[in-house]
Amino acid sequence: MALKARVLYDFHSENPGEISVRENELVTVFSEEELEGWLEGKNSRGRLASSPRPTWRSSGTTSPPTRPITTRPITTASPRPNPLAIPHLPLLSPREEEGEGEEWATAAAVTLGTTPPLYPVTTSLPARRSSSQQQQAKSTATVGRNLNRFSTFVKSGGEAFLLGEANALVRDGDMMCVVMGKHGPEWQEDPYPFTCTIDDPTKQTKFKGMKSYMSYGLTPSHTNVQVNRRYKHFDWLYARLVERFPVISVPHLPEKQATGRFEEDFISKRRKGLMWWMNHMTSHPVLARCDSWKLGKRKAERDELVGANFFLTINPPDVPLDLQDVESKVEGFKTFTKRMDENIIVVNTTINEFGRKQMIGFKKEYQKVGQSFKVLAQAFEMDQQAYSVGLNKAIAYTGEAYETIGEYFADQPRHDLDPISDLLDIYKGHLANYPDIIDVQKGALTKVKDCPQQESDLHERCNIISCATLAEIQHFHRTRVRDFRLQMQHHLQQQISFFQKITAKLEDALHRYDEPIL
Amino acid sequence: MALKARVLYDFHSENPGEISVRENELVTVFSEEELEGWLEGKNSRGRLASSPRPTWRSSGTTSPPTRPITTRPITTASPRPNPLAIPHLPLLSPREEEGEGEEWATAAAVTLGTTPPLYPVTTSLPARRSSSQQQQAKSTATVGRNLNRFSTFVKSGGEAFLLGEANALVRDGDMMCVVMGKHGPEWQEDPYPFTCTIDDPTKQTKFKGMKSYMSYGLTPSHTNVQVNRRYKHFDWLYARLVERFPVISVPHLPEKQATGRFEEDFISKRRKGLMWWMNHMTSHPVLARCDSWKLGKRKAERDELVGANFFLTINPPDVPLDLQDVESKVEGFKTFTKRMDENIIVVNTTINEFGRKQMIGFKKEYQKVGQSFKVLAQAFEMDQQAYSVGLNKAIAYTGEAYETIGEYFADQPRHDLDPISDLLDIYKGHLANYPDIIDVQKGALTKVKDCPQQESDLHERCNIISCATLAEIQHFHRTRVRDFRLQMQHHLQQQISFFQKITAKLEDALHRYDEPIL
Repeated sequence: MALKARVLYDFHSENPGEISVRENELVTVFSEEELEGWLEGKNSRGRLASSPRPTWRSSGTTSPPTRPITTRPITTASPRPNPLAIPHLPLLSPREEEGEGEEWATAAAVTLGTTPPLYPVTTSLPARRSSSQQQQAKSTATVGRNLNRFSTFVKSGGEAFLLGEANALVRDGDMMCVVMGKHGPEWQEDPYPFTCTIDDPTKQTKFKGMKSYMSYGLTPSHTNVQVNRRYKHFDWLYARLVERFPVISVPHLPEKQATGRFEEDFISKRRKGLMWWMNHMTSHPVLARCDSWKLGKRKAERDELVGANFFLTINPPDVPLDLQDVESKVEGFKTFTKRMDENIIVVNTTINEFGRKQMIGFKKEYQKVGQSFKVLAQAFEMDQQAYSVGLNKAIAYTGEAYETIGEYFADQPRHDLDPISDLLDIYKGHLANYPDIIDVQKGALTKVKDCPQQESDLHERCNIISCATLAEIQHFHRTRVRDFRLQMQHHLQQQISFFQKITAKLEDALHRYDEPIL
Repeated sequence: MALKARVLYDFHSENPGEISVRENELVTVFSEEELEGWLEGKNSRGRLASSPRPTWRSSGTTSPPTRPITTRPITTASPRPNPLAIPHLPLLSPREEEGEGEEWATAAAVTLGTTPPLYPVTTSLPARRSSSQQQQAKSTATVGRNLNRFSTFVKSGGEAFLLGEANALVRDGDMMCVVMGKHGPEWQEDPYPFTCTIDDPTKQTKFKGMKSYMSYGLTPSHTNVQVNRRYKHFDWLYARLVERFPVISVPHLPEKQATGRFEEDFISKRRKGLMWWMNHMTSHPVLARCDSWKLGKRKAERDELVGANFFLTINPPDVPLDLQDVESKVEGFKTFTKRMDENIIVVNTTINEFGRKQMIGFKKEYQKVGQSFKVLAQAFEMDQQAYSVGLNKAIAYTGEAYETIGEYFADQPRHDLDPISDLLDIYKGHLANYPDIIDVQKGALTKVKDCPQQESDLHERCNIISCATLAEIQHFHRTRVRDFRLQMQHHLQQQISFFQKITAKLEDALHRYDEPIL
C-alpha cells in the first residue's frame, strides 16, 4: 500500500541501499511494513532500498491532518527510541483520530513489549528556576555519584535530581503540591477530576480484512467525546508515563496475549483490565494531571519534565520531614507490600480455583441432581393416573431447576470472582512498582545521610523525593482501601444476588407442588 | 439367672433329657439362654436337661403381669416357629412393658435375621363361613396344585386359598373391604386412623452395664401413652405381618447393623427409618387395623387369619373385575416398579454423592476462600491507619462468614438429602415386596385361565386376590404420590432456608463495609 509522505529532516545515506532525502521532500512509501526501523520507498530520484532516519510526513492519499512517520537505521543501538510519531495521537484526544489509526499501527507495534528507554535528561533550554522552587540546580562536590549505573535510583533520574543536575523550565501550572494531611504527606487533590469510560471493543479490519484489531471506545468525562483506541496506544502511553514519573506507581496494563486476542473472554478481561488501569490513572492526582495522555497536542516543552526533572515540579510542605520517620515509614511500607504481594497470590489462586470448581464441579453436581430428579419423574410418568400427573410435572420441573442452578454456578464466577481477580491484577502491578520507588527514596536517603547539614540543597532535594514517595504511599493506601472496600462490597452483593436467584428458582419449583392431590 | 415360670400347656417327654410338665405347674428356668427352642430348668420332681415344648409362665421373681415363656424341641424342623411368647408384648401396648424387656430379650433375639416362617394354615376350629363371605371353602377337583412348593404363590397361601383350602373363623370385624374407587379397586379407609411418634432412643443397660441397647419411646395417637420398644420388637412384628398378609406390601424395617449401633448417625438414621416404617404401617388401611401389633392382648382366634386365611377377610366390590384388565394393570405396575426401582437407585446414588461432595468438597472450597480473605485481612492489618481498620475487620469478618458458609454446606445434606434417601429406602423395601405380590396374583390368574367358567368359586376367589392386589397397588401409588410430594416439598423448603441462611450471612458480612472511609 503505497503512501505519499513528506520528509521531516535531512538524511544522508552512508551505505548502499540507503538514499539521501531532504526536509519537506515528497516521497512514496511502498508499504507500512517497517523493518528494523527502515521503510521501503522511493523519492523523485529513484528507489529507496530502505528508508533513512529522518521523518517524513505523509500526504495525498491520507486525508488531513497528516501524520509523521519515523524510521530509524538498523545501526541505532538500544535503548532504541520509540517512534516519535506516536505522541501526536494522544490517548484521549479526539482530534487526530480519523483515518490515522492504520498508518501508525505498524510503527507503534515496534514499541510493544519493549522496555521504555530511560535516557539522561538533556535539554537545549537553559536551566530556569521556577519561583516556587527553592533548590539550586548545581552539582555538589561533596556527594559522589552512584557507581551502579543500573540502579533505579540512577536510571530514574533520582540521583541526577539529588545532585542538582535536573535542569528544565517549570511553570507554575506544572507544579505538583505535596500537602501535609492527617495521615502524613499527600498529593494535593486534582482540582479538575475526571473519569473515562471504556466501551466494549469492536473488531476492526484493515488491508481488506487481512489484518484485524480490537478498538475500544474511550469517553473522558471532561470532553464527553468518544475516541477509538487500540491496546498499543495504551501501551505506548504506559511507557511514556513510566519514563516520566520516577516515584509514581504507574498502573500496569493488563497482560498482552499473543493468541486468542479476539476471543470473547480475553476481550472482556482485557477491557476490565483497561478500565482498572484508566480508573487508577484518572484517580491519581499526578497522573490525571499529566497533559500528554489527555490533551492530545504535543507540548514539546513539557517533554522535558521527565525523570530527574519531574522532581522539579514537586512543591513539598513547608516543614521538611523527619528523615528517620520517613525511613521507618518507607521500611514499614516495604514490609507491607511484600506481605500483600504474597497474600494476594494466595487469594488469587484460591478464588481462581474456586471459580473453576464452580464452573465445573459445582455445576456438574447440581446438574447430576437435576438429571436424577428428571429420571425419577420419568419413572413416575409411567403412572398417568390423574393424581400422579401434577407430581410428575413438579419433579421434572425441580430437575430442570437444579440444572439451571448448575448453570447459575457456572456463570457466577465472572460476576463476583473475576472482578476480584482483576483488582488483584492491578495491585500486583503496583506492588511490582514499589521496590523501584523505594529504591529511589532509599538511594536519596543513603546519599544524604553521609552528607553534612550545610549541604542544605541536598537535604531539600532529598526531602522532595521523600515527600513524593510518602505521598505516593499514602495514595496507594487510600486507593487500596477504596478499591478493596468497593470490590468486596460488589463481590458480596453479587453473591447475595446469586443465592437469591437460586432461592427464587427453588421457590418456583416448590410452587409446582402446590396442586392438591386429586 | 433363675426364673420361676408357670407352665401353660402339658408336655410329655419322649426322649431322655426331656421332662414332662403339666399346665399351671411351677418350674424354675436356670437361664434365659434358649438352645434350639429348649430351655434348661427343673420342676418340683427334678431337673430338666432341656425344657419341653409346653409353655410356662414365669412368676415370683418377676413382678406381675407374668410373662409366658415358650420353648420348643430341637427336633422341630424348619421353618421353625417363632417363640409364641412374643405376641404377648405387642409393639404398642403399654400394659406388659415394665420389667418385661429383659426376660424375653433372648428369646426375641432368636427371631433376628430369620426368615419368617410361612407354614400351612392348620386350625383346630371347624371351618366357619362369615356371613359376608361368598366363596365356599372346598377343594376343587379340576385345578391341580402347583408343583413348585417354593413359589410365593404357594408359600404365601395364595394357592391354598384359591383351591378353597382356607378355613378359619372370620368375624365381621375382621373383614377388610375393597371398594371401587375413581381409579379402580381401593382398600376401604381405616375408620379409626391413628399415628404413632417415635422419640429419640435412649441407651439402656442391663446385667449391670454388661449389655446395652437402644430403647425408643413410641406414642400412638389413639392411646397417647408412651411405651419403650427396641429394634427387635419391630423386627419380630415385621416377621409376623409378612407371614400374615400375602398381598400386602409390609414396609421393610431400616437395615440391621452389627457395629456402630450406638453411634449418633446410625441411631438417627435408624429412628428416621423406623418413623417411615411406622408411618407406612399406620397409613395402610389393612396394616393399621391389624390388632396384633397395637392392641397388645393375645387374641388367639385372630392368629388364624394368616396366609391363605387372610383372603377370607377380604370383601370385594360387587362387580367382579375384568381379568384382562387386571392382567394389564398388574403388568403395567410390574414395569412401573422395575423402572422405579432402577431410577431410585440413580437418585439415591446421586444425592448421596452430592451430599458427600457438599460435606467435603463444597465445605473445603468455601473455607479455603474464607481463609484466603482472612489472609488478605492479615496483610492489610499491617497498615493500621484509621481509615484502614474498618476494612481490615470487614474483610476478616467476610473470611469468617465464608468459613461458616462452608459449615452450612457440610451440615445441609442431613436436612434435605438424607430425608430423600430415607424415603427411597422405604420404597426400595416396597419395590422388593411387589414381585412376590405380583407372583401371587399371577399364580391365581394362571390357574383360573385354564379353568372352566363353571368353577365360579375359583373365579370368585381369584377375583378376591385380584381386588386385594389392585387395591394394594392403588395404595402404593397414593402413598407414593403423597410421600414424594411431601418429601420434595420438604427438600425444597430446606434448600430455600439453606440459601436464605447463606444470604443472611453474606448480608451480615456486607454490612461490615458500611463504615465510611475516614
